[in-house]
Amino acid sequence: MTSTDSDCWGECLDVAVQIARKAGKQGGVLSVPQVVQEAVKQEKRVSSKSTPTDLVTEADHQVEELIISTLKEKFPSHRFIGEESSAAGEKCVLTDSPTWIIDPIDGTCNFVHSFPMVAVSIGFAVNKELELGVIYHCLDGALYTGRKGHGAFCNGVRLQVSKEKDVSKALILTEIGAKRDPHTLDIFLGNMKKLLSAPAHGVRIIGSSTLALCHIASGAAEAYYQFGLHCWDVAAAAVIIREAGGCVMDTTGGPLDLMSRRVVAAGSQEVADYIVQQLQPISYGRDDHDP
Amino acid sequence: MTSTDSDCWGECLDVAVQIARKAGKQGGVLSVPQVVQEAVKQEKRVSSKSTPTDLVTEADHQVEELIISTLKEKFPSHRFIGEESSAAGEKCVLTDSPTWIIDPIDGTCNFVHSFPMVAVSIGFAVNKELELGVIYHCLDGALYTGRKGHGAFCNGVRLQVSKEKDVSKALILTEIGAKRDPHTLDIFLGNMKKLLSAPAHGVRIIGSSTLALCHIASGAAEAYYQFGLHCWDVAAAAVIIREAGGCVMDTTGGPLDLMSRRVVAAGSQEVADYIVQQLQPISYGRDDHDP
Repeated sequence: MTSTDSDCWGECLDVAVQIARKAGKQGGVLSVPQVVQEAVKQEKRVSSKSTPTDLVTEADHQVEELIISTLKEKFPSHRFIGEESSAAGEKCVLTDSPTWIIDPIDGTCNFVHSFPMVAVSIGFAVNKELELGVIYHCLDGALYTGRKGHGAFCNGVRLQVSKEKDVSKALILTEIGAKRDPHTLDIFLGNMKKLLSAPAHGVRIIGSSTLALCHIASGAAEAYYQFGLHCWDVAAAAVIIREAGGCVMDTTGGPLDLMSRRVVAAGSQEVADYIVQQLQPISYGRDDHDP
Repeated sequence: MTSTDSDCWGECLDVAVQIARKAGKQGGVLSVPQVVQEAVKQEKRVSSKSTPTDLVTEADHQVEELIISTLKEKFPSHRFIGEESSAAGEKCVLTDSPTWIIDPIDGTCNFVHSFPMVAVSIGFAVNKELELGVIYHCLDGALYTGRKGHGAFCNGVRLQVSKEKDVSKALILTEIGAKRDPHTLDIFLGNMKKLLSAPAHGVRIIGSSTLALCHIASGAAEAYYQFGLHCWDVAAAAVIIREAGGCVMDTTGGPLDLMSRRVVAAGSQEVADYIVQQLQPISYGRDDHDP
């Protein structure tokens, strides 16, 4: 990477923060937090994607379009992977090109219910390496940022993961995933049972993968695992957690594969390794396979 | 009840709100939110109560003492049931006397991890009827209040439950409980499986019964159920939910028994009834039995 490239990624972070955060009207266009905050208050027109519990709203589309069009104007040569573009049939392939990976509203089910855990997630990769991540908690205003080699922050305060190594003192977060057939549920609940029997202090399910991952970065919980999430759920958060001193890996124990739809993240390698050993896998296919 | 009594309960609400909310020093004594907010930032000295996952900290004791001593000064004839006093061996019996029912820090496990879902809960019963409830979310400053016949509010905004009747459109909240033996976990996870197979939109576990119950009152989720909670987890919230138009009942479908350590709460009777039919009970004994 040249120093010019490196400067560019700094500018990318600034632009992503601006898009995710800025309140007030920008040239007559509502900002992202405004769109989400307004929409949270209203009745949502909801439709389903892959399953009856995989929800999408008009606001998802509106926010993704707003983010991508703003980024495209600033960085016309960059590529984009977005949750809603992918659902609409665009290929979800990570190349060496500078690529933005976007979840316009993470926690759509929460959003539909006005359950206050909803976030915008904007990640950025170059040469298939994650360079920066910005996550904005739309309802409490917490802005999480991370840039490779430059640390991770929440509203300007440096983030530091929990260094707890003992799973019996760990708080563990997970999400249920969209598949709800009896076999998948049995594996999901079996994994939860193993960790509760460790015994972990507790398991939490808050309904937003990206905000759960932010809690790992801030040290408010020791670990997160999930089968069935997407690259846009983890891209931004992975940078933030690593820059806060944590590890993000595949559920098999190997390196994170952004397109594999599975992740273990933890403050300490010891807790991550323990969880990897416990998990029975749930197959969700890959993000970069044709549907 | 005489009109003088009724006026008195209004004053009780004002005093409870003052205690739960007031920031700044009062006569040299730290306020409740200050004690909790300061303690969240620090390393906690943690000990266990009934099981290794049933945690208590110095702050629990300190906050309960602060609340009870302030209330006693104002209402010397009233009785008190508090989480930490009960753990220390005081009898947990509800009489006809005006009685304050207090959870100084609900979400102690969250508190230990600085996971930002921690609340102070203050309920008040007369003639064994719940008259008012005050719940303060220590970290985001949301103050939930309810008084029988006078409505429920969050920071002054009137609360209204979700009127959704269809469980397949419901977001359902629960908590794991302190018992983690394999048999109890199987029942807990089996109940969760039934509701996820309904299929409910989702199940959330946030680690604070009182804040979960506040989400039912505000309409952010449709229902809550739990085995193993205590009277101080539900006393304040029950008034708030009822005044927001929701129902709070026993897991058998009968009326709420405050000492039974089990509850179903929902925005609509239909969703509550559905959940009651699905649940396999977990026995936790009663709050008002000798240990």
